[in-house]
Amino acid sequence: MESIPRQQDTARQWMRASRTERPVVDSTVTIKDVAEHAGVSVGTASRVLSGNPATSATARERVQAAVTELGYRPDARARALRSARSHAVGLLVSDVRNPFFADIAHGAEQAALGASYVTLLANANEDTAQQDIYLEAFLTQRVDGIVIAPQGEGGGNLRALERARTPLVFVDRTVDGFDVPSVTADNAQGVELAVAHLAAEGHTRIGYIGGPSSVSTGRARHDAFLAAVARHGLDEDPDLITAGDFRSASGGAAAAALLGHRRPPTALLAADSLMAVGALGEVRRQGRRIGADLALVAFDDIDWFGELDPPLTVVAHDARELGARAVRLVLDIIEGRPVESAVLPMRLVVRESSTGRPAAD
Amino acid sequence: MESIPRQQDTARQWMRASRTERPVVDSTVTIKDVAEHAGVSVGTASRVLSGNPATSATARERVQAAVTELGYRPDARARALRSARSHAVGLLVSDVRNPFFADIAHGAEQAALGASYVTLLANANEDTAQQDIYLEAFLTQRVDGIVIAPQGEGGGNLRALERARTPLVFVDRTVDGFDVPSVTADNAQGVELAVAHLAAEGHTRIGYIGGPSSVSTGRARHDAFLAAVARHGLDEDPDLITAGDFRSASGGAAAAALLGHRRPPTALLAADSLMAVGALGEVRRQGRRIGADLALVAFDDIDWFGELDPPLTVVAHDARELGARAVRLVLDIIEGRPVESAVLPMRLVVRESSTGRPAAD
Repeated sequence: MESIPRQQDTARQWMRASRTERPVVDSTVTIKDVAEHAGVSVGTASRVLSGNPATSATARERVQAAVTELGYRPDARARALRSARSHAVGLLVSDVRNPFFADIAHGAEQAALGASYVTLLANANEDTAQQDIYLEAFLTQRVDGIVIAPQGEGGGNLRALERARTPLVFVDRTVDGFDVPSVTADNAQGVELAVAHLAAEGHTRIGYIGGPSSVSTGRARHDAFLAAVARHGLDEDPDLITAGDFRSASGGAAAAALLGHRRPPTALLAADSLMAVGALGEVRRQGRRIGADLALVAFDDIDWFGELDPPLTVVAHDARELGARAVRLVLDIIEGRPVESAVLPMRLVVRESSTGRPAAD
Repeated sequence: MESIPRQQDTARQWMRASRTERPVVDSTVTIKDVAEHAGVSVGTASRVLSGNPATSATARERVQAAVTELGYRPDARARALRSARSHAVGLLVSDVRNPFFADIAHGAEQAALGASYVTLLANANEDTAQQDIYLEAFLTQRVDGIVIAPQGEGGGNLRALERARTPLVFVDRTVDGFDVPSVTADNAQGVELAVAHLAAEGHTRIGYIGGPSSVSTGRARHDAFLAAVARHGLDEDPDLITAGDFRSASGGAAAAALLGHRRPPTALLAADSLMAVGALGEVRRQGRRIGADLALVAFDDIDWFGELDPPLTVVAHDARELGARAVRLVLDIIEGRPVESAVLPMRLVVRESSTGRPAAD
């Protein structure tokens, strides 16, 4: 019976199969075909395939040969109905077009593949209704666990998932009132690094382009900004505080509001990459130049931020590590190991956008 | 029996459920619970739930009431084993971190949701082995169809999928020798638009940063570039032709090679967005300025390309439309409608990177 695949070997077999370029077994081969080919009844074939000892050596040999010749593969869904595992993890990101979440997805997927799991990725599009659709789809597909960067206040299917005790991990964002393990970044530290840097560069009026207060990272960064501004003795003018929705257009609108102020800020801090991009565009349209006329620091170390002209100073998360750690955490839950939430450090990458000078490195 | 969901209504119900914030039904409720609650046998409950007319009105009423009270939902996988549909489409993109493919994924997902299908997204990471793993995962999950931006020459599971007659559509890229419907962009037209524009701007030596010859878009754009250069009477120096792998670092290396030439080009054409970003960085490191010292045109109209300084001239696909059309095509196959491949037009968006002047708009 050794060559009949067990469910928990499926993912490993995917990988072995792909390495050797073995084609997918024709999924139209059924147990009936196997039985017919082996010259036994369907019941006998089924007993052989399920490892039932009440089978003759001859039947086992014949069925085994038929399985090999026909390339029969027991339906994984049918087996998953009996066994517990699908060896698939659902990953729901907030916005697949946000490069930060694309990096999280990449890190998650590589970690999952390394543990013989596949990742089914879905996009909430920063929308709670779409989030609910995909959480339902994940349940329907019987994923073994779910990693989610959650939208909203925790209604809908998110609460139901928690009740159903589906292995669940939050990544990047959390939702208040949920007792769910999480892998997040140290937002307060990140904001403090950015504000301290801008203060050291001589800025006292920093315009803040924040995220939505409905998202935990939006709230955490906002609160940290107020604290850092007070700590460094900078201007606490409330007109310097704006909020967007983590999308590009909202960053442009926020920059326009800040720069239209009677006493505009001399530096901007954008709470995510897309809003920073929107702000860049608005600054350019106003004929000002980042680095020379106005400093800009953005959250999220997107690959191409260092390639911009000028390159952007960023508060860097390791998005891939966030994704990888979150997947390892959900696998710990699935496989019954002890779990612990993690908060990853952020770091500041200083480039020309906040100094007006080429980076020292 | 009206309120017993049919499989084809599942996706619609997801959406209805999510709109009303109805929580996911507790998936631990089984048909045994329903039977017990209704005071009927499991066999009777099963017959009622499957719409078998050999049931009493009383049994139907009781089972119906139990279904409603317990929030019972027939296991979708179990039903999918009997019915044909999972109402899920697999979408395999080449590189989830390439914003072009993120846009394709977004367009695909929105089109699928509009047709009551969910999209399970997977990332090939420009790697045929990883592609094979996810194609196998899609089959295991019994998706109704697959949309793929294919890697490689068509070995492995791609060939097996075609043999298994899984509804399959190529998006953006194709593979020679496969009779698979596709939605692609008119690469030859796109290259011609770019070269004609650069020629009109007075450039005669255009450096080409191409994609890999193992990918159909890499080959098509390369051939179109040679044809367009000849057509416009430009310099056919073979040293002006380089090839990368559609990733950022390769664009930087190609730009370095081109700019290190004894007679460097005065303009660059990059065959995708990430290679253009790599080239931008290399140009900056050499102390040259795009727009002023060197023209640059890139493939793929990424949102933030217009926000760069200077904004990039691009050969624009409508990536979202590519994704949406591909999903509609695979749904046509799944639902037995006639299908036809589509080639979408490209257009040139002229910005400052190729003119040195602010765009007229």
